Amino acid sequence: MEETKGVVKHVLLAKFKDDVPLQKIDELIQGYADLVNHIQPMKSFQWGKDVSIENLHQGFTHIFESSFDSTEGVAEYVSHPKHVEFANLFLGHLDKVLVIDYKPTTVRC
Amino acid sequence: MEETKGVVKHVLLAKFKDDVPLQKIDELIQGYADLVNHIQPMKSFQWGKDVSIENLHQGFTHIFESSFDSTEGVAEYVSHPKHVEFANLFLGHLDKVLVIDYKPTTVRC
Repeated sequence: MEETKGVVKHVLLAKFKDDVPLQKIDELIQGYADLVNHIQPMKSFQWGKDVSIENLHQGFTHIFESSFDSTEGVAEYVSHPKHVEFANLFLGHLDKVLVIDYKPTTVRC
Repeated sequence: MEETKGVVKHVLLAKFKDDVPLQKIDELIQGYADLVNHIQPMKSFQWGKDVSIENLHQGFTHIFESSFDSTEGVAEYVSHPKHVEFANLFLGHLDKVLVIDYKPTTVRC
């Protein structure tokens, strides 16, 4: 039923462990960003810290959004050795992680 | 420390209650989208269903992303009567909700 082509956004929410220094967090974010230079199907990357005011963040402090041309592209990314290596490092510094992928339906942009 | 101007993305993850019919879910999504026509600081809206393959979605099934020009714009949106009315309706149909706002740092777009 689902088409496999078209933009797929890959959204990861993270809460770093309390004992991870800010410098290490910066390094990890740079490492995440650097994946876009190594994994061909990864087309874009952006990130930010939570600034929400509704207190519905459930402890998550950072969000990372990358985009792909297809769900196959995401699958290639997930199994890519550069991603696997980075994910092992990154996840070891997290208390919480949540991942959603979606094909955006845009109402207004 | 934080600047208040610049794009702010408002990301909401949702899991609808199991007994909410698909038609009602469609209506709620249309109602969410319609807010962009009524709340001036809300600049864009897109949404999608989770298609992730990593099993890290923690039960969330839908994601909604809107954008604003500033954190003040988000605050105006949150307290806008049209949003308050919609949120009361929408949240009543959800099992889980999570909200993150962030000012994207774009590495590649």
